[in-house]
Amino acid sequence: MSYELLEADRSAVVVIDLQGKLVEMAHRSELVLAATERLLRLAAIFERPVILTEQYPQGLGETHPRIRAVFDELEVPKRLVRKVSFGCCGDAGFLAALDDLLPGFPPRRRQLVVAGIEAHVCVMQTVIELLRRDAQVHLCWEAVSGRGEEYRRHALDRMQQAGAILTNHESVGFEWARGKEHPGFRELNRLLRDGQLT
Amino acid sequence: MSYELLEADRSAVVVIDLQGKLVEMAHRSELVLAATERLLRLAAIFERPVILTEQYPQGLGETHPRIRAVFDELEVPKRLVRKVSFGCCGDAGFLAALDDLLPGFPPRRRQLVVAGIEAHVCVMQTVIELLRRDAQVHLCWEAVSGRGEEYRRHALDRMQQAGAILTNHESVGFEWARGKEHPGFRELNRLLRDGQLT
Amino acid sequence: MSYELLEADRSAVVVIDLQGKLVEMAHRSELVLAATERLLRLAAIFERPVILTEQYPQGLGETHPRIRAVFDELEVPKRLVRKVSFGCCGDAGFLAALDDLLPGFPPRRRQLVVAGIEAHVCVMQTVIELLRRDAQVHLCWEAVSGRGEEYRRHALDRMQQAGAILTNHESVGFEWARGKEHPGFRELNRLLRDGQLT
Amino acid sequence: MSYELLEADRSAVVVIDLQGKLVEMAHRSELVLAATERLLRLAAIFERPVILTEQYPQGLGETHPRIRAVFDELEVPKRLVRKVSFGCCGDAGFLAALDDLLPGFPPRRRQLVVAGIEAHVCVMQTVIELLRRDAQVHLCWEAVSGRGEEYRRHALDRMQQAGAILTNHESVGFEWARGKEHPGFRELNRLLRDGQLT
Repeated sequence: MSYELLEADRSAVVVIDLQGKLVEMAHRSELVLAATERLLRLAAIFERPVILTEQYPQGLGETHPRIRAVFDELEVPKRLVRKVSFGCCGDAGFLAALDDLLPGFPPRRRQLVVAGIEAHVCVMQTVIELLRRDAQVHLCWEAVSGRGEEYRRHALDRMQQAGAILTNHESVGFEWARGKEHPGFRELNRLLRDGQLT
Repeated sequence: MSYELLEADRSAVVVIDLQGKLVEMAHRSELVLAATERLLRLAAIFERPVILTEQYPQGLGETHPRIRAVFDELEVPKRLVRKVSFGCCGDAGFLAALDDLLPGFPPRRRQLVVAGIEAHVCVMQTVIELLRRDAQVHLCWEAVSGRGEEYRRHALDRMQQAGAILTNHESVGFEWARGKEHPGFRELNRLLRDGQLT
Repeated sequence: MSYELLEADRSAVVVIDLQGKLVEMAHRSELVLAATERLLRLAAIFERPVILTEQYPQGLGETHPRIRAVFDELEVPKRLVRKVSFGCCGDAGFLAALDDLLPGFPPRRRQLVVAGIEAHVCVMQTVIELLRRDAQVHLCWEAVSGRGEEYRRHALDRMQQAGAILTNHESVGFEWARGKEHPGFRELNRLLRDGQLT
Repeated sequence: MSYELLEADRSAVVVIDLQGKLVEMAHRSELVLAATERLLRLAAIFERPVILTEQYPQGLGETHPRIRAVFDELEVPKRLVRKVSFGCCGDAGFLAALDDLLPGFPPRRRQLVVAGIEAHVCVMQTVIELLRRDAQVHLCWEAVSGRGEEYRRHALDRMQQAGAILTNHESVGFEWARGKEHPGFRELNRLLRDGQLT
């Protein structure tokens, strides 16, 4: 198991199932939404590819409009994956998107920054399967949630035990930048200026 | 150590010592009972075998009637094991039942979903011994308890440190289904419709 | 690293520095004293050897009279070690006592059940050094303490990370017995009858 | 991974970015300052080298005067490193200082005692990179902080998962001394006499 810092050139962002009905039921949903918005803006600053997934949108509703709006504005490589399997890796389109967006990096070099819901169902199944495919998973604790704080907390623990790294959007941005000389640093600073999300 | 998702065809449910006098002393006993009932109904939906154990029922009383009623209704392969050793693996009948109910799977492929009491005594001794026999243990945190929250919490930690995976009945059901196309999904949904247990 | 249950024939109890002045400053000192008393009585029931240590008793005072009284009554093999090094393994008499009390068992087979204070000083130094000598350490969370709950909690975490198993006197007793048929079970039951220590 | 106690002859202290504006925003900043002061005094007692770092002091301000005053008084080998990379290992001067201050010890033998802010940015990037260079990191939980308790707590967890040891200035001192016979013990005792920092 490798516990590395993020490196911008081999990272991608994966946002899982932040859909209408599900988001409303999530613990601290405002934090999840605000942190995911910032994470997507960080992807823009550091030119990182993004995958947005939706679980059976016909029934569960589409991605929350705040998230969808930021996603639509992104000019980085991006994919929208609609799926019927709970875990993203059960969907061939998701796996193809990963290969597509991080070309040239074998799975064990890929660093996937994950946000979304629900921690103990779709996020869990995605993360465990990604880890078994040798990818590195950096899970944003403030942007991953679900119904019930206890269910969420134990799910984060289980993913961590399996090898996922618990991080947050601020750490992600500072790891992608690595220092104040990075051309994206000024914009990173501006994005975080309104204060820390809690 | 392997941190896999559950796969329905090689999983079994083990419910440990949910007996009258002991259940009444357990921390959050209503949650334990309700979650275990749902876990048994999930075993029915996904056709998974079940072992129910009782510790010295002559002295400690029989399985709680709510659990016993669901167990009796089950049409899946099942066994009732009465034991005098605290850990289930100390009982030859338990080990034979495992071999019987998961034929063709070597121990390291077996995924045992565990509920019951007391976390720091009979559940602990069972889980550590199962892990030493290379089985995977998925421990439902909401369905495992005992007297004293601190004793319970540290017991869960110790089992996790030894390699057990902390899960819950909802995650179990969604891992057995893996996606909304599974024939059992509609029934799973119905079972969880009344809201999340806490 | 081995995460086994205790086996009575290769276990010993180590009680560290429960001395007057230090005990009074410990977080939840009444719990520490009561649990250690029970642990010593369990050693008597299951005929397990005991080492009691004192750090510089001329200055810090002698072992708390409640603990000393139970220790003095013990008819099992026992040693009192007075030391000036914080960790017990820095004292040749302690290491000799271990060899003496668990003859025939190589270090990696020895299971040492530890109680005492302070978690982040003398217990820490003892436990880390025991683990580096390949012994198994079973640390009773309710019988290990020190000044400041945060210092204690982080110390327990660090010892666990290094490979110590967090247990408690009840689990110790039930692991030594393993089942209700054990000749010591009746006496174990009597000892715990007054209720769970918290 | 090695979970050793500290040994004075191969330890150094690293204090990260305790600068004006940043310190004021840190959770429990008084504890961080007081514990770091004591840690520096321990370095003096046990004659351990010290590195003090500042992140872009032109913009973020200089080291907090209380810390700077103790640092300036130190007669042990010491270095002040001004950096623009968030992690100290991104700065060639920092790596050279380590080689300089702990000559003759290969990286995997070096024990670095770390204090500073922010846990989830500069401390994180420093610690993960030090661990990847095989150094041992002993992180003082009471002297490491940042904005937001949740960000801090998860950052400590992540560093621990990566192999860092969570310790505190008291444990550091007692591990450097190892016993009451150490010539520095009397001074250590005097330093801690005013009571435990919380």
